[in-house]
Amino acid sequence: MIRTADGESGERKPVLVHDPTLRDGHHAVRHNLGPDQLRRYAAAADAAGIPVVEVGHGNGLGASSLQAGQARLDDDEMLSVVREALPNSRMGVFMIPGWGTVQDLKKAIAHGVDVVRIGTHCTEGDLAERHLGFLRDAGVEAHGVLLMSHMASPQRLAEECARLVEYGASGVGILDSSGHFLPADVAERIGAICHTVGVPVMFHGHNNLGMAVANSVAAVEAGAGIVDACARGFGAGAGNTQLEVLVPVLERMGFATGIDLYGLLDAADIAGRELMPAPPTIDSVGVVSGLSGVFSGFKNRVLDISRREGIDPRDVFFELGERQAVAGQEDLIVDVALALREEAHSGRPAGESRPSDQV
Amino acid sequence: MIRTADGESGERKPVLVHDPTLRDGHHAVRHNLGPDQLRRYAAAADAAGIPVVEVGHGNGLGASSLQAGQARLDDDEMLSVVREALPNSRMGVFMIPGWGTVQDLKKAIAHGVDVVRIGTHCTEGDLAERHLGFLRDAGVEAHGVLLMSHMASPQRLAEECARLVEYGASGVGILDSSGHFLPADVAERIGAICHTVGVPVMFHGHNNLGMAVANSVAAVEAGAGIVDACARGFGAGAGNTQLEVLVPVLERMGFATGIDLYGLLDAADIAGRELMPAPPTIDSVGVVSGLSGVFSGFKNRVLDISRREGIDPRDVFFELGERQAVAGQEDLIVDVALALREEAHSGRPAGESRPSDQV
Repeated sequence: MIRTADGESGERKPVLVHDPTLRDGHHAVRHNLGPDQLRRYAAAADAAGIPVVEVGHGNGLGASSLQAGQARLDDDEMLSVVREALPNSRMGVFMIPGWGTVQDLKKAIAHGVDVVRIGTHCTEGDLAERHLGFLRDAGVEAHGVLLMSHMASPQRLAEECARLVEYGASGVGILDSSGHFLPADVAERIGAICHTVGVPVMFHGHNNLGMAVANSVAAVEAGAGIVDACARGFGAGAGNTQLEVLVPVLERMGFATGIDLYGLLDAADIAGRELMPAPPTIDSVGVVSGLSGVFSGFKNRVLDISRREGIDPRDVFFELGERQAVAGQEDLIVDVALALREEAHSGRPAGESRPSDQV
Repeated sequence: MIRTADGESGERKPVLVHDPTLRDGHHAVRHNLGPDQLRRYAAAADAAGIPVVEVGHGNGLGASSLQAGQARLDDDEMLSVVREALPNSRMGVFMIPGWGTVQDLKKAIAHGVDVVRIGTHCTEGDLAERHLGFLRDAGVEAHGVLLMSHMASPQRLAEECARLVEYGASGVGILDSSGHFLPADVAERIGAICHTVGVPVMFHGHNNLGMAVANSVAAVEAGAGIVDACARGFGAGAGNTQLEVLVPVLERMGFATGIDLYGLLDAADIAGRELMPAPPTIDSVGVVSGLSGVFSGFKNRVLDISRREGIDPRDVFFELGERQAVAGQEDLIVDVALALREEAHSGRPAGESRPSDQV
């Protein structure tokens, strides 16, 4: 028997759930997962029937470095451990051109990767052209995905996705990297993309505004065929869409994921016990990061600099949002902090910069 | 400047945010908050402009007892501490007839309570008649609210609410006590109630299915004028709607709460640091509780009995849901556990009772 919201059975639209717990979750633990952790979670995910398990450094293939954080295991180790633990599930990897290269893709192919995602900033899909072309020629399933997608209009995202398909992507999609979207925002963007391309469309949410599950549902209702979610929401800051919550919600709404509920809960329990010190929660910085549309990876540096300069880190986030800061532009934090300190010293009433009515 | 989702300003529909952090949150810490904790949070909530701050034992006035848990402070102490800390915000209390009596209401009135909520099971609004009548005659604002509201149809909830208004309630509403609803469920129920009564309608969510914020937004969009939310989601199990997330989301969607964002985040930071060992997260029991529609307060007893009987606690939850168990019927847990053990011993394949396709 299938329990749906209204007790009906019938034709259930399939949704492919893609699980980046062992990749995006890495951000929350400084890329420090060891072989037993990878093996045990991957085996549990496989047993639950999760279709795709993604693994790697948080920033993807080739990203382990002083700048992005040194991973405990190198790509070869991660890929071989997880490949072996997945007799049924497909193995996915993620790569951002610049961090990773064609050499890294060849390595992943040698390890038997099934799905490769190439990620670029939402307005820079052209950076994925060479890698998507290489993967198409190599006969490997390749998807193109757009980061920080709240920074482009629905129309622009659709155009970028169409370009990714031309380059060879057999799937495209958007990441809500700073957790800024509300469900209507997601529906509009996914709808525009589905209207434009003829390949499966994916959505990847973050929970800064408590909307990760609702946004993912909105994506599926707007036509997305692939949604990302992580066990216990494992991920940086406020975390990702919570996998073991999303799956039964989709099933109850009449979609078919093919995932076993109890196996899924077992995998999530393993993740909760063995992968993370504590599951992500939405703290005040997470809320401000989501509202301002600034990647939560800026958090520690914003807090440090704000303390040093005696200014409110929330003001820094909102100003970074105004200036459209993206990852890699951490230098902007100092500029913003100095500007805010100037303003404060110029005698303006202290409360005036507080966006009390700017929520 | 007001930042809305689309940058527009204009007429903003007011929404009253009601904050039961110091009442519902009490469930998560065995009713153990002390005077300094109450005072500091209430003062911060008042400073942020939160309209109503509710305080008390988790089960409301008069509920401190061996059965429901002994509160650290008695009702008099809680009410006097919080009253003093609220120069601007209104003070609310909650009472379930049976736990509390008219004597408790008189006590609350003597302490200067502004809003009293009388809660009953969703199909037993008539139990509130005497108390709502007493409060009306005493000239105190009184609302009638329905617990475990997923167990009644939208039509039935609307009828119960109409009855509560006849009894004297100047506000009515529903609690999603087991966190079972999805947004469309909430919209349908709140819509039916708003269509039937002429007083403000409230919604109180729990986050078992990751939908507390989305459900509260759906309630407001369907006509609710009052929504409940707790700082950091402080509450039993998977927690309540997270206050400092809901408020800016409502503001961004074009509703007016009158609450100061930074003050709100400050209050939430105090709550996170001083009221709770850790913010609520959605664990596997929380998911199953939400799916099965069983109050998460059953958790510890279900886990204990399941361990003793060697059965899967998730099966117990789903069976309790089938049997429509409500709080106070904890004896049912034993019946269910024995029945499940019988089934297991009767030679049925072990996996058969697992609702792998029943999500």
